Amino acid sequence: MAGIAAPRMAHSEPVIPDWVTVAGERARGYGMPAGQEAHVQRAIIEPFKDIAPSFSFSGTPHQRLRGTITPSGLHFEVHHGGRPNVDPEQHRLMIHGLVERPLKFDLDSLGRYPMVTATHFLECSGNSLFNAIMPEPMQAGCDVLHGLLSNTEWTGIPMSILLEEAGVKPEGLWVVAVGNDGPSLARSIPIEKLMDDAMLALYQNGERVRPEQGYPMRLLLPGYEGNMNVKWLTSLWVTDAPAHTKDESGEYTELLADGSAVKFTFGMGVKSIITHPSATMTMSGQGYYEISGLAWSGSGPIRRVEISADGGQSWAEAELVEPVLSRALTRFRLPWRWEGAPTLLMSRAEDSTGAVQPTRSEWKARYDPSNFLHNNAIQAWQITSEGMVQNVYA
Amino acid sequence: MAGIAAPRMAHSEPVIPDWVTVAGERARGYGMPAGQEAHVQRAIIEPFKDIAPSFSFSGTPHQRLRGTITPSGLHFEVHHGGRPNVDPEQHRLMIHGLVERPLKFDLDSLGRYPMVTATHFLECSGNSLFNAIMPEPMQAGCDVLHGLLSNTEWTGIPMSILLEEAGVKPEGLWVVAVGNDGPSLARSIPIEKLMDDAMLALYQNGERVRPEQGYPMRLLLPGYEGNMNVKWLTSLWVTDAPAHTKDESGEYTELLADGSAVKFTFGMGVKSIITHPSATMTMSGQGYYEISGLAWSGSGPIRRVEISADGGQSWAEAELVEPVLSRALTRFRLPWRWEGAPTLLMSRAEDSTGAVQPTRSEWKARYDPSNFLHNNAIQAWQITSEGMVQNVYA
Repeated sequence: MAGIAAPRMAHSEPVIPDWVTVAGERARGYGMPAGQEAHVQRAIIEPFKDIAPSFSFSGTPHQRLRGTITPSGLHFEVHHGGRPNVDPEQHRLMIHGLVERPLKFDLDSLGRYPMVTATHFLECSGNSLFNAIMPEPMQAGCDVLHGLLSNTEWTGIPMSILLEEAGVKPEGLWVVAVGNDGPSLARSIPIEKLMDDAMLALYQNGERVRPEQGYPMRLLLPGYEGNMNVKWLTSLWVTDAPAHTKDESGEYTELLADGSAVKFTFGMGVKSIITHPSATMTMSGQGYYEISGLAWSGSGPIRRVEISADGGQSWAEAELVEPVLSRALTRFRLPWRWEGAPTLLMSRAEDSTGAVQPTRSEWKARYDPSNFLHNNAIQAWQITSEGMVQNVYA
Repeated sequence: MAGIAAPRMAHSEPVIPDWVTVAGERARGYGMPAGQEAHVQRAIIEPFKDIAPSFSFSGTPHQRLRGTITPSGLHFEVHHGGRPNVDPEQHRLMIHGLVERPLKFDLDSLGRYPMVTATHFLECSGNSLFNAIMPEPMQAGCDVLHGLLSNTEWTGIPMSILLEEAGVKPEGLWVVAVGNDGPSLARSIPIEKLMDDAMLALYQNGERVRPEQGYPMRLLLPGYEGNMNVKWLTSLWVTDAPAHTKDESGEYTELLADGSAVKFTFGMGVKSIITHPSATMTMSGQGYYEISGLAWSGSGPIRRVEISADGGQSWAEAELVEPVLSRALTRFRLPWRWEGAPTLLMSRAEDSTGAVQPTRSEWKARYDPSNFLHNNAIQAWQITSEGMVQNVYA
């Protein structure tokens, strides 16, 4: 580890700190982060404050996290009407429409069904929106720029089991999922996805799903854009066609460069971000650093992440932290020496299907300039000769 | 509603609940579990209140959790002198003794070292102590009986890197690790373990290690008994022999049936518990249930978990939740029908080395009756014809 200046021990006056001489606090029922870490919070983001005041967002502070699991307290939020205080005793999930046996479940009755456990990312389709539409790159951290992205361990009931119990009729090809909150967010989902790997998520990182992630139950569609993973799930209406709800005909469509609009862009593209170093950080001198970041894809496991320290002219393959799971965040790491010169850092991920992240200009060329959804372009960080790390378009 | 079991809402009037008609709360910086889940707490356990009043314990409520990750707020605690409020700016880690270059690190200087991420269980060697020594089986939940066991994703610096920088002399065969709290818990560790998979853990489930798990840094020795994973780690003293500290010559030794004592029982044995159903629960009628639980071993990944519903006469192999990681909790599941008859449920784990959990009587036979450490005996749950689930010795 030549290059990291760990100080040699020098003789100094012995100091017995307070916390060694006074008794510590006893065990407690539910723990919290250290008081000294109180600044590690989700970033409150209000991009649509004027046009949609009931929307509220918070972003995971990836620049302060170093693993792959997102602690539930820091999982990102996107609420269209705030976080409802759902009473789990009154909450019901209905399966109805084109089924043989309409069913209604309460939370207790669901407790006896078989469960599955899997770690999956969720990403809002509007993640990285500022980099998509701001004329000049915004100088902010990963929490604001890319924080509508998190990764937790989910446990719940395979949707296929509940749908099979209801008995989907042959003409039942779509399911409209509706949330039990004011906006009643509603999305049409192909029945194939629900019968494949969809989950009625009841637990998150071991404990009950948190209120802002859909307590007491949410839909989990691994790899699909965040809003389709309907929170506070109350109704699954089996239909023969998509419902073209306001959420899918309006809010969650992408306008292309040729003027046409894309609807039903379900899967999230392959993507990566370097979290260390990243914008708003300052390098602490020349020498050894570990470049570290996160990669993910809605289509399957990450196959490869490459890092460039020369603006994309040459690339080095990073190490992927095992286990590399499908549709989950994968941390990558690469040892690196910073020689003090201006440097343009980039990461480029490839998934198991061979899909590779586009450059920002490639990504922009596909869409109308107003589109900010599904931005999976390569993120570039500029390190100045003073060691400041800045967000740049490259 | 209060105090009355609510009937199934088979034919009820349509109700628009409050949380749909009033605006929800906006996004916030750090989330917490739902208020309705406030009872999901660590169990405060005080087995040595009279003889060691400064000890305090809390147990993870495994009977209320359904994944494999333990949320950090519910990670078990064992404190010999409480939870110190360590100032991360003043805290130092020293590496000294039989080294070429004694080193002293502050938290900032550690931020530039290469890191690794891995999910590992921690188990107190005193876990399941009541089942070891109580003459009659205690009727309590998994939190009290087996809660000194948790599983989180840890991120930190490989200890081998820090020790190599210090330059361990050829005669440096042991390392005495000391915690920065009142009791200065100190344990001697073979250098081989530290050069193998030991980690200086700085992050837990993505965020900084929690105060009760050693903020700002702890030693992580995958598979080794909990107390050796020294919290608030401040000193690594490289020596040529174990130090025989009070913690290892007194508290953490096992008295055998022949009167001799075993010291340095580092690794935790292969073990499993059924969490659903488990003691204090009541079955909600006959029919389908999913038997679910946790298995782990200090020696490597779990190879197999078998379930018996007839007191150990016949066994069925449970499904293991992927990925099955080494020295991490593995959840197992098995579909099962309860016919309403009295039933004796057991789980039996086998690890990658071929080690299998002993029965309680096999385990007891090895030790002096007073020993309560390293109890990895098979747990038996009795289901009565009324559906009550009870802790039994079998």
